[in-house]
Amino acid sequence: MFKINDNYLKLPGSYLFSTIGKKVAAFTQDNPDKEIIRLGIGDVTQPLAPAIIQALHSAVDEMAQAETFHGYAPDLGYEFLRDTIAKNDYQSRGCQIAADEIFVSDGAKCDSANIQEIFSQDSKIAVCDPVYPVYVDSNVMAGRTGTYDPKTETWSDVIYMPCTADNDFVPAFPKETPDLIYLCYPNNPTGSTLTKSQLQEWVDYANKNGAVIIYDAAYEAYISQEDVPHTIYECEGARTCAIELRSFSKNAGFTGTRLGFTVLPKDLKCGDVSLHALWARRHGTKYNGAPYIVQKAGEAVYSEAGKAQLKEQVAYYMRNASVILEGLKEAGYQVSGGVDAPYIWMQTPKGMDSWSFFDYLLEKANVVGTPGSGFGPSGEGCFRLTAFGSYENTLAAMERIKRL
Amino acid sequence: MFKINDNYLKLPGSYLFSTIGKKVAAFTQDNPDKEIIRLGIGDVTQPLAPAIIQALHSAVDEMAQAETFHGYAPDLGYEFLRDTIAKNDYQSRGCQIAADEIFVSDGAKCDSANIQEIFSQDSKIAVCDPVYPVYVDSNVMAGRTGTYDPKTETWSDVIYMPCTADNDFVPAFPKETPDLIYLCYPNNPTGSTLTKSQLQEWVDYANKNGAVIIYDAAYEAYISQEDVPHTIYECEGARTCAIELRSFSKNAGFTGTRLGFTVLPKDLKCGDVSLHALWARRHGTKYNGAPYIVQKAGEAVYSEAGKAQLKEQVAYYMRNASVILEGLKEAGYQVSGGVDAPYIWMQTPKGMDSWSFFDYLLEKANVVGTPGSGFGPSGEGCFRLTAFGSYENTLAAMERIKRL
Repeated sequence: MFKINDNYLKLPGSYLFSTIGKKVAAFTQDNPDKEIIRLGIGDVTQPLAPAIIQALHSAVDEMAQAETFHGYAPDLGYEFLRDTIAKNDYQSRGCQIAADEIFVSDGAKCDSANIQEIFSQDSKIAVCDPVYPVYVDSNVMAGRTGTYDPKTETWSDVIYMPCTADNDFVPAFPKETPDLIYLCYPNNPTGSTLTKSQLQEWVDYANKNGAVIIYDAAYEAYISQEDVPHTIYECEGARTCAIELRSFSKNAGFTGTRLGFTVLPKDLKCGDVSLHALWARRHGTKYNGAPYIVQKAGEAVYSEAGKAQLKEQVAYYMRNASVILEGLKEAGYQVSGGVDAPYIWMQTPKGMDSWSFFDYLLEKANVVGTPGSGFGPSGEGCFRLTAFGSYENTLAAMERIKRL
Repeated sequence: MFKINDNYLKLPGSYLFSTIGKKVAAFTQDNPDKEIIRLGIGDVTQPLAPAIIQALHSAVDEMAQAETFHGYAPDLGYEFLRDTIAKNDYQSRGCQIAADEIFVSDGAKCDSANIQEIFSQDSKIAVCDPVYPVYVDSNVMAGRTGTYDPKTETWSDVIYMPCTADNDFVPAFPKETPDLIYLCYPNNPTGSTLTKSQLQEWVDYANKNGAVIIYDAAYEAYISQEDVPHTIYECEGARTCAIELRSFSKNAGFTGTRLGFTVLPKDLKCGDVSLHALWARRHGTKYNGAPYIVQKAGEAVYSEAGKAQLKEQVAYYMRNASVILEGLKEAGYQVSGGVDAPYIWMQTPKGMDSWSFFDYLLEKANVVGTPGSGFGPSGEGCFRLTAFGSYENTLAAMERIKRL
């Protein structure tokens, strides 16, 4: 008789955003007259920029003629896109990343879930707490996290690095040496950042201790401050210890269009085995490339018109971030984030845990946010709001919250 | 010091089609004047049908306006597509498959590689030999296949079911009971099929022995004979033992557009755990949905116009299949397949192994095919040609082969 991967059964509850979706659906059914404002899941609301729309139409037309039709894409992505990424995101910042160190994919969520596969079964992972749930859950599914303690909401074999207001959301180096360190900056969910010198310390730590940093830079486009690095490869030595994950979801509104990439420098090795070769093998065997039309859309993100239009789009969302930040402060909440990131992190009112505050906000203000505890135990007593709504909705949500 | 997943190092050579790609690239570089005809990799050449192009343009326009913009798709696919699939591919054939048993994805290659994840680490897999390499390689990466014997080109812990001209390409039930049985019909690479009663025997075998059949029906659209089942759910009892993988790549030319789906009936259980719930959890955690515009294109495949246009497209390729089948027969080769499948399977000339014939055909006729041994040891002495070229190229290739 066949057996299942029982690591799946260890996962508590369902995926955070599925749970939220179900709660909101139930509330809507019971209260069909209430107008919900969603500042929960990090989904964008602005349409694709005109330069991207134009690229999509033009690529669709290519698919209509045998002469310009595109079948299977190259395993690792089209060169036109990999070149453009290498030049614009790395070489222009003085980072030595070559086009063939870039692996195009259908998004950073998949990449961040799949990357653990190329590491040993007994790898010890370290994550910030709170953290994007996919890093931990994908390792649970792989059987790498030990047992779950429902009391502390932690896994026995995961190293948690608390990031709270007390340490200004900057994790301390863990006592036990990890093999894989997941870092996400600008941070989801706290909206915090590391300065370049802080990130350099992590790169030095990883190189010294033989660890790999999986650096999720999905929110890079939202950086506004000078000394915040846009990529981990701005740090010296990152080529021998860091994998970077990038997304088109937030900088270009591709949440429903699906495009991302992973940077894996050829200098990152375990003995004489290059991780680049392993990831290439995984792509070649288990993935079949992002759609041609979507890769053309990705290229348009880097065109002059695309850049200008997306700068405006990011500014639009960051105006929302200010509205939320200021609104919550006015309403008397303790808040952070929202300066280099589209996320605002707030402390829930005294005596109210994260899920109680979720219910309270949904019922009383009809505003959906994300409970901090959904991101890890140190997120308890916190709550995340996103700047990805429309300006009008964001203003309205703040008015409602101020009236509570 | 971090360690890698050393199962990856067990994989011999590179992914089959990457190797072919490199060989062809080298030949082209050395012989820039030779015009290569590619009948190797199963990539389509006909453009997307007009109904699909229209749906793509219209969906792109929706993405340009905030009111009709689409962000994150539902985890498991849009209902409009899942409903359409359930009705057209299943309910219309009398198969009880519900829309929520369909999981939309970016293609059958990914699904066929990922599906093993929800099964126990010690699952024993059975595959036809020859076989699509992804089934085995994905299990190698998961550490499920034991050790590789380069002499026999087999894995110690995989059950091989030879499919040769001797058994008319119909596998016998294995002596050892497997947990997972990979079946692909119409078959890649041999182009063979099972009749409904033959497939029913496999369903009965799986139910009796507590095995799961992973049924890859990517080539279903090419079936021309009456008694060949279009889906495994035509067989009684398949809901309790079979997972079906489907693709839009070959029936609708989506190799570069990327869309597929997996059917996982809710009756398929291990004790009281439903595999449907596990796969849903995997999708929710490690995948982020197929692009909205591509799902709209998938819906157009089932429109009246789409169906008519794609019937013509399939007929176009099947005319190629006849040309190859008849051409090779005329040239004196022993051939099979090509009637219910876009693949023609031929025996190589006496004394020439599969890769020698590959080189011979590339050098002498400038035609690219796929060496049978690349699909498994029982494929040695065989060779695959595909019907996915243009009609003109297919005719020209046959002329060249006849002249050898």
